[in-house]
Amino acid sequence: MTGKNMPARNAFYAQSGGVTAVINVSAQAVIETARKYPKKIGKVYAGRNGIIGALTEDLIDTSKEPLENIRALGHTPAGAFGSCRYKLKSLEQNRREYERLIEVFRAHDIGYFFYNGGGDSADTCLKITQLSESMGYPLIAVHVPKTVDNDLPITDCSPGFGSVAKYVAVSMREAGLDVASMAKTSTKVFVLEVMGRHAGWITAACGLAAARTGDAPQVLLFPEITFNPQQFLAKVDESVRKFGYCAVGVSEGLQNADGKFVAESGLVDAFGHAQLGGVAPVIANLVKQELKLKYHWAVPIICNARRAISPQRPTSSRAMRWARRRSNLPSRA
Amino acid sequence: MTGKNMPARNAFYAQSGGVTAVINVSAQAVIETARKYPKKIGKVYAGRNGIIGALTEDLIDTSKEPLENIRALGHTPAGAFGSCRYKLKSLEQNRREYERLIEVFRAHDIGYFFYNGGGDSADTCLKITQLSESMGYPLIAVHVPKTVDNDLPITDCSPGFGSVAKYVAVSMREAGLDVASMAKTSTKVFVLEVMGRHAGWITAACGLAAARTGDAPQVLLFPEITFNPQQFLAKVDESVRKFGYCAVGVSEGLQNADGKFVAESGLVDAFGHAQLGGVAPVIANLVKQELKLKYHWAVPIICNARRAISPQRPTSSRAMRWARRRSNLPSRA
Repeated sequence: MTGKNMPARNAFYAQSGGVTAVINVSAQAVIETARKYPKKIGKVYAGRNGIIGALTEDLIDTSKEPLENIRALGHTPAGAFGSCRYKLKSLEQNRREYERLIEVFRAHDIGYFFYNGGGDSADTCLKITQLSESMGYPLIAVHVPKTVDNDLPITDCSPGFGSVAKYVAVSMREAGLDVASMAKTSTKVFVLEVMGRHAGWITAACGLAAARTGDAPQVLLFPEITFNPQQFLAKVDESVRKFGYCAVGVSEGLQNADGKFVAESGLVDAFGHAQLGGVAPVIANLVKQELKLKYHWAVPIICNARRAISPQRPTSSRAMRWARRRSNLPSRA
Repeated sequence: MTGKNMPARNAFYAQSGGVTAVINVSAQAVIETARKYPKKIGKVYAGRNGIIGALTEDLIDTSKEPLENIRALGHTPAGAFGSCRYKLKSLEQNRREYERLIEVFRAHDIGYFFYNGGGDSADTCLKITQLSESMGYPLIAVHVPKTVDNDLPITDCSPGFGSVAKYVAVSMREAGLDVASMAKTSTKVFVLEVMGRHAGWITAACGLAAARTGDAPQVLLFPEITFNPQQFLAKVDESVRKFGYCAVGVSEGLQNADGKFVAESGLVDAFGHAQLGGVAPVIANLVKQELKLKYHWAVPIICNARRAISPQRPTSSRAMRWARRRSNLPSRA
């Protein structure tokens, strides 16, 4: 693309969708690597609140940051530049939006687009590449994988999944030991609800820290396998008889035979409103009703997965200030 | 108690109630300290599954363990010797049970009783001291405080609370930053449910990592303060307008004006069974119904508080084998 005497073109980086424990590590990698090739890439602009930052021309010039700030991104929580859930429509439905993106890219001489997100982001990269070609504005769009669910096609292991996998594995092992040490007179069934609405990778990861037969979890309920209450209860009963307790890992996306989410299976509050609870309390309630066993359930904050990396290292104070501005919080007096 | 030529009397140590991140640190401290005073204290026996171990004469002789195993207790998860929820009745109601304890203590020449638990354990210590005196068997009973709730009278800060306080503080700060970085197009209200059914210490701890006005959490709902839905919704609405999002910390023991737990306020499943869900989904549902805001809620596993200490250090393999035996898991082949 860039000839011998052509100036290096700039890059645009944006975060998309739910943040992961390592989304800012990807940001750091993109920016640091770009700086290593000044003949190829000029400035790296980051979009404030993801792709919305491009549409509204709200760009953060990362070249103004010293390298230490960029390095600290790797240990900075949340989405350092702001993320968004904003899906670009199809080219046919909203061609104007794509043209607007290209306009902004052209105005800032952006030749590289790094989009840090899930499957939709990858799709957006493809569409923008196609449109930029047809508009005579050559653009290289690169999808930077990000998802906790690990459900991206072709991508074997997505950044974000590993941290969550470790988190749920350790949590399940710890909770299993806790319950085992109490089970004689107290909680006998523990239910851990995990993310992954259509993909069972995180559910499977619940079992990663089990070392021997009989270690927690004794039961895993996957979104890909229709929930069979009788079979489930029999398994729980067997585990309690055999090991004194039962630890269950369950996907938020567990489905009934009718294809509905178990989490939404008819719970209503005092006013008759549908109650969008988690699947864990539903499963736990079933155990209580049918097996009369004492239970405990949990729905962890997946963001905590981050703490599996390093809670002590410094965060990017600049990024924290960005976060602050983003949310209109008062700055330090 | 022990005269110049009298042999040192033995000690009995038992864990009681829910385990904390540091209950085994207390065990380590009792055993290590006892070893430093061989003229005062002989062997330290631990009860398997707490006080039940004394009633059934199921004692673990910790003097057989090398010091390194005892030291490793400090980094061993769960209740290393097994805990139990078993409340001794009053002296009048079940004097025989107390007499049985004294019998076992007498049989093993136990002159010191360390009971590691909450308020009930402290009360048991008092009763046993009184009974042992009246039975002519002098016994020194020492309550070793343990509770996450920090609700023990006189005890200013109970071991167990600090770990949980740090855990919820960090969790709230992380989740707050996550939500702030997504709020423009996604989740605007985050609800974190925490323990402490009648004491608001853990709820208050949610705010420990807030540095400036407007930092998460913006709203805390205490068990000591009757829930006022209108006031709550107004606060959430104000926070979302002002900061772009709202993070809420809520005690599992939050009560309605009628004195009932909000968590139990009339939820029924498809079969009309009362649904014992958490308070977080009830609160989140209220926000959705009344303010039409996108929410996310979590009920963390408090056991994870442990990871705030050190996930890397070795655990007591002996204690892990105890845990294994306790739960009748197959031993390593």
